[in-house]
Amino acid sequence: MAKRLAGRQMLEITSVNNEKIKETVKLQQKKHRTETGLFLLEGYKPVFEAYNSGVEIKTLYVTEKYLEKFKFLEDKTVLVNDAVLKKISTTDSVPEAVAVAVQKDYCAEDIKAEKRVLLIENVKDAGNLGTLIRSACAFGIGAVVLCGETVDIYNPKVVRSTVGCLFKIPIVKMQLQKAREIFKESKFVATVVNHGDIVNPESIDFSSPFVIMLGSEADGLSDEAVECADIKTTIPMTNKAESLNLSSAGSIVLYISSRG
Amino acid sequence: MAKRLAGRQMLEITSVNNEKIKETVKLQQKKHRTETGLFLLEGYKPVFEAYNSGVEIKTLYVTEKYLEKFKFLEDKTVLVNDAVLKKISTTDSVPEAVAVAVQKDYCAEDIKAEKRVLLIENVKDAGNLGTLIRSACAFGIGAVVLCGETVDIYNPKVVRSTVGCLFKIPIVKMQLQKAREIFKESKFVATVVNHGDIVNPESIDFSSPFVIMLGSEADGLSDEAVECADIKTTIPMTNKAESLNLSSAGSIVLYISSRG
Repeated sequence: MAKRLAGRQMLEITSVNNEKIKETVKLQQKKHRTETGLFLLEGYKPVFEAYNSGVEIKTLYVTEKYLEKFKFLEDKTVLVNDAVLKKISTTDSVPEAVAVAVQKDYCAEDIKAEKRVLLIENVKDAGNLGTLIRSACAFGIGAVVLCGETVDIYNPKVVRSTVGCLFKIPIVKMQLQKAREIFKESKFVATVVNHGDIVNPESIDFSSPFVIMLGSEADGLSDEAVECADIKTTIPMTNKAESLNLSSAGSIVLYISSRG
Repeated sequence: MAKRLAGRQMLEITSVNNEKIKETVKLQQKKHRTETGLFLLEGYKPVFEAYNSGVEIKTLYVTEKYLEKFKFLEDKTVLVNDAVLKKISTTDSVPEAVAVAVQKDYCAEDIKAEKRVLLIENVKDAGNLGTLIRSACAFGIGAVVLCGETVDIYNPKVVRSTVGCLFKIPIVKMQLQKAREIFKESKFVATVVNHGDIVNPESIDFSSPFVIMLGSEADGLSDEAVECADIKTTIPMTNKAESLNLSSAGSIVLYISSRG
């Protein structure tokens, strides 16, 4: 159905059973995101940041209430009601709008000149991955490499947790050995817990090219990853806590690297 | 129903409609936790850490499979099936066991001699609060003060996110002015974003008594909190990211304070 609003004809969808809505809902699943190369953006800030960073936005679903706020995407707008918006979104509270956007693909070639890199291996928690990308952006990291079985960066929770930083830094999936090869001039710094042969992060020279490596919250970096590191480091702490949250630990090492 | 297992009589509950199970499920809500002074512990590690820290455990619900692992709570054990355990627990995957434990109350008097304090105001995200308590524990903080409308520390997600640290550090709810009064010998350090009159966290002397103050992710510290601070600090970062995740920012300041 088309509706005339603010002097414009605009597509309007009011049924959650509409085919276009059904297709959009499927993007909550990784399988469909991978097949289509699309993903969901939920809320004003992520949509606005993505738009400003040159991310291609296919469709914006918004209710009449917030139409004006999203005027910059007027030609992509589909008017919906709260029920449809709730159906599309993955958050507990209904966001102001949901957009369907095109994934941005980077390859090894795009990032091989980077001197300040974060490598993340086997991170399964979407909140942790998003928070690490946000911190990487805040502390001047030039590229993020994802190794092993790491959660999809276009997972809605990852997208939310990066608070717009997802679009400001190239992120590339690659094998560990490939990363070792293209960044062969860089110092690989493994963040570990309970290892011998460890240096204090404060004593690492981060003024020369580096790759900071972070592993999964449950198991840390794989043996293969630790073996290919030039330096192993741990954040000194009291023995009251066994370990830090992964994104806290990563953010501290990234902060230290930014002073170097 | 009672069951004879490993030479012992043990209460067994197989129905999710059992009254005792219904009462236990209610502990997922803050109202019932506050009324009863009880809370839920989910999984081996939280139960074990709480037990080791002297937290009183009323009941342990466990399936036959993990009975042996929880032998230290044999006299509190109620045998259940997976359906009952799933009903009681708040996680997506069913934990090995769920325990009902007694909340530990601390008052201002208990913590007034602490020289290294973290004050958290209006933090609504359970994961953030739990992660901050974990980092506080790791970096030698002696007490945590909660001000304003902060999420309940016995919220199951907070309990999980602290990874056992919840029981290792006294946490007290109090008014901001009360905190200012009992820690009047301490330097109050407000962590802020976009403020004038800011010092670099690296230049703060954390060898004398301090209270590090952190506000809500959305709004930061209240004006009242910022006004009562002796020092305002921000973590230096690039202008690519607008801000850091609250628990990342807090963990970095706590880390810096631990080196002081």
